[in-house]
Amino acid sequence: METSAIDRWDGLVVNARLATLDADDGYGMQDDGVLGWREGAIVHIGTGATLPDRPEALADEVIDAGGDCITPGLIDCHTHVVFGGDRAAEFEQRMEGASYEAIARAGGGILSTVRHTRAADEYALLAQSLPRAEALRGDGVTTLEIKSGYGLDYASERKMLRVARRIGGELGIEVRTTFLGAHALPPEFAGRPDAYVDEVVDWLPRLHAEGLVDAVDAFCEGIGFTAAQTRRVFEAAHALDLPVKLHADQLSDLGGAGLVAEFGGLSADHIEYASEAGVKAMARAGTVAVLLPGAFHVLRETKLPPLDLLRDHGVPMAVATDCNPGTSPLLSLRQAMQLACTHFRLTPEEALRGATVHASRALGLADRGVLRAGMRADFVRWRVHEPAALCYWLGGNLAAGVYAGGRRVA
Amino acid sequence: METSAIDRWDGLVVNARLATLDADDGYGMQDDGVLGWREGAIVHIGTGATLPDRPEALADEVIDAGGDCITPGLIDCHTHVVFGGDRAAEFEQRMEGASYEAIARAGGGILSTVRHTRAADEYALLAQSLPRAEALRGDGVTTLEIKSGYGLDYASERKMLRVARRIGGELGIEVRTTFLGAHALPPEFAGRPDAYVDEVVDWLPRLHAEGLVDAVDAFCEGIGFTAAQTRRVFEAAHALDLPVKLHADQLSDLGGAGLVAEFGGLSADHIEYASEAGVKAMARAGTVAVLLPGAFHVLRETKLPPLDLLRDHGVPMAVATDCNPGTSPLLSLRQAMQLACTHFRLTPEEALRGATVHASRALGLADRGVLRAGMRADFVRWRVHEPAALCYWLGGNLAAGVYAGGRRVA
Ligand SMILES: [Zn+2]
Ligand SMILES: [Zn+2]
Repeated sequence: METSAIDRWDGLVVNARLATLDADDGYGMQDDGVLGWREGAIVHIGTGATLPDRPEALADEVIDAGGDCITPGLIDCHTHVVFGGDRAAEFEQRMEGASYEAIARAGGGILSTVRHTRAADEYALLAQSLPRAEALRGDGVTTLEIKSGYGLDYASERKMLRVARRIGGELGIEVRTTFLGAHALPPEFAGRPDAYVDEVVDWLPRLHAEGLVDAVDAFCEGIGFTAAQTRRVFEAAHALDLPVKLHADQLSDLGGAGLVAEFGGLSADHIEYASEAGVKAMARAGTVAVLLPGAFHVLRETKLPPLDLLRDHGVPMAVATDCNPGTSPLLSLRQAMQLACTHFRLTPEEALRGATVHASRALGLADRGVLRAGMRADFVRWRVHEPAALCYWLGGNLAAGVYAGGRRVA
Repeated sequence: METSAIDRWDGLVVNARLATLDADDGYGMQDDGVLGWREGAIVHIGTGATLPDRPEALADEVIDAGGDCITPGLIDCHTHVVFGGDRAAEFEQRMEGASYEAIARAGGGILSTVRHTRAADEYALLAQSLPRAEALRGDGVTTLEIKSGYGLDYASERKMLRVARRIGGELGIEVRTTFLGAHALPPEFAGRPDAYVDEVVDWLPRLHAEGLVDAVDAFCEGIGFTAAQTRRVFEAAHALDLPVKLHADQLSDLGGAGLVAEFGGLSADHIEYASEAGVKAMARAGTVAVLLPGAFHVLRETKLPPLDLLRDHGVPMAVATDCNPGTSPLLSLRQAMQLACTHFRLTPEEALRGATVHASRALGLADRGVLRAGMRADFVRWRVHEPAALCYWLGGNLAAGVYAGGRRVA
């Protein structure tokens, strides 16, 4: 191999165990793996034998991975990391026996997060949210979805989405924003959910015009919005050519999986109660199932998502943190993978695909999630030898280097 | 307050929220807290009002905690962090449906760890084990118990204990060693457990003479050693004035809790199946219950320890990681606290006491576990405002500073 000065790569990792995931089955392991990149994209992948004798001549930086495992950068495709305030005291009350209902009556729950999110200015909200996104990045996340939905008025939803965008810039990773105005009914619209949906539908094009919205989501549930209200939100998204996704069938089967599939949605998330008809509709539409084991763990739920149906019908399963202050206080996608293995009996390979290959699809991104020439140079060097170890350890600082678009960011 | 040069403190933290735990109930919170230390011990604790106008004159280093929460250094009183090899592949097989029995028949399980531990020389064993201890320290651990029990021959048990001691030196934290020769029956003694116990009893005084043993433990279980065999090990410990503890009643009630209490033991660990008689005996003997929610989580167990009995009889409950490659791959004591809250419904306060106050007692150490003048200056500054937040978040890098004997170690 010869490269002229103009073809020089920006970086090259040698002596790695690459889990490329670039195969239908298995990790796509490549021992004695090498990975070169230029201008943010992978330009070469193979074994050490594919390199000339002096690889240092090929690239500005050559990193010896010492046999460490390298995976695609992790993709957290469902989070609520932007929020104000703290719900640790409420967690304490719950552990002391208080019910969610009693806490909500006392002014706690999601509306306490809404109050704190509204009260914080953009700078304060960024300062509170950034360490959470940084923690996710520190454990391997290079693409991060962030939802609005704790503002519930135009200015506060806008503020959340602006903070989400700024997080991407601050951390050097890609943030995908999701407008989740239909997350909960704000107190000023109590008893008037349809009037609130009118507002949400009105805000969407204005937020979109500012470049703040990559996708649209809703919470379709007995304690959230009805299927008819969700449909109105989706129609507004459709009119703007924005992709949709849905918090669907978490606590009951409202047909959410089928509804989001009908709109060709990117993903149906949670779906513990989805029916076989819903799963079939997802399969037909190519809608990804996003599994969120953090909330399952914290709420000590017992109703599993329809995993066998999803597998039987070939629905791709992503895994995400759902990082949020109420039901899923997860600051690590790797821990979500561990919980997916423990609680849902995913194999470690399924969990890793769920946080890479399938998560990229859940965000509509075709340029990442596997290690392959032409894809973004998003990858993580891990202090482990087997990729299964990523799903095995709870805690620990396993990421030895996190690279986003070829730049080391953690 | 006046201090002469000779009385100068080595360090002083101001503007902290101190969770002193120095009270029978509650966190012992001290807002606007200050903490001064000298020669490794806390010399002053109180509010900012207890300091003169220019606190920087008091101490060589003054740290403004900016309102962060400070707790006693965490104490992990039950770990197996020293071992050779890796069981990630086996975890993968289990998640793919293989039983523990099938894995053991194929040469996996604990005996695979024994093979790798025996094969590693002292340096290699240290190199493999140190990152695990470092991860525990990074999430707040300043005192670490480490057991032998994967060597199962004299030289290999000695090697494990020597590595454990070296970890303490390398990391600047205190390591307490526990001889667990009676952990499993090595293959060369198959069918001859009593002959193996003869060996264990023979090794103990030799290892103790080298200063390698702080306490003695055994695995009393159908798949481990009988109560009679355990008693022989305890008698050997007793003859050397060494304290005992026990892996007791994890999978069945063999009366282990009562047995270790009879020997005035430091702790009975696991104890999912302990009887009320066993709990009463522990209460009388002052034996601590060490809860190990990591194994409960990974094994998806459903039989809870007798928590109400323990509370009713006033048995102190410690929480530990049980960090080990087979059943409890936990690299964070904070995550064990989270699991104790989620799975065992401990309150966050109980979990924090369990990893400080009661864990110190489980190791027979009276000089740590609370923040009080005269105690060791072991403390952690956390990036949280409420101590409950430590049990709330899964993952994340919450420790902003870990101090052992007044020295910052992480
Ligand atoms: Zn969510
Ligand atoms: Zn153990």
